[in-house]
Amino acid sequence: MKHLLDDINKAFENKIRLGIMSALMVNEALDFNSLKELLGVTDGNLASHLKTLEKAAYIKVSKQFIGRKPNTKYSATTSGKRAFEKHIKALENFLKNNRA
Amino acid sequence: MKHLLDDINKAFENKIRLGIMSALMVNEALDFNSLKELLGVTDGNLASHLKTLEKAAYIKVSKQFIGRKPNTKYSATTSGKRAFEKHIKALENFLKNNRA
Repeated sequence: MKHLLDDINKAFENKIRLGIMSALMVNEALDFNSLKELLGVTDGNLASHLKTLEKAAYIKVSKQFIGRKPNTKYSATTSGKRAFEKHIKALENFLKNNRA
Repeated sequence: MKHLLDDINKAFENKIRLGIMSALMVNEALDFNSLKELLGVTDGNLASHLKTLEKAAYIKVSKQFIGRKPNTKYSATTSGKRAFEKHIKALENFLKNNRA
């Protein structure tokens, strides 16, 4: 039996991860500080949730140098984008049913 | 600074808790087995999430006997309903922004 909440993805349940993915759907790549500012979270908290999404292969990390300063950027992978869209649809369906 | 995800409530992030609250918004009270069937979850899993919501005072438990059989019912508290509605609004706003 198919349940209403089946397509809600555990990887995106947490609101910080929801926010990270959302930001990376509309921005091709973002660095750590931009994400931090956007979401209003602490370094440790953000780092830990980025790691979770990276392990799930939903985001990828690229490191480069700007002059001598290291710059780390995060972007959504194709499978991450696909999974997030599915999750958003599941949330939308859930909300629709919830209002009915 | 106010962030888009501020009103998303950690108590409802988990999809089983989301489902429990949703079910208790439209049903005045439900017993354990009805919730279990509705959500398609195991006993242990459901019990643990019910406990979390009970600790937050978002649901209340009433025990009675039907003949000799114990019957435990769960219902949403007023503060639970209020908190859930706020959460749903936050999700709706988040999705709206996500689509824009």
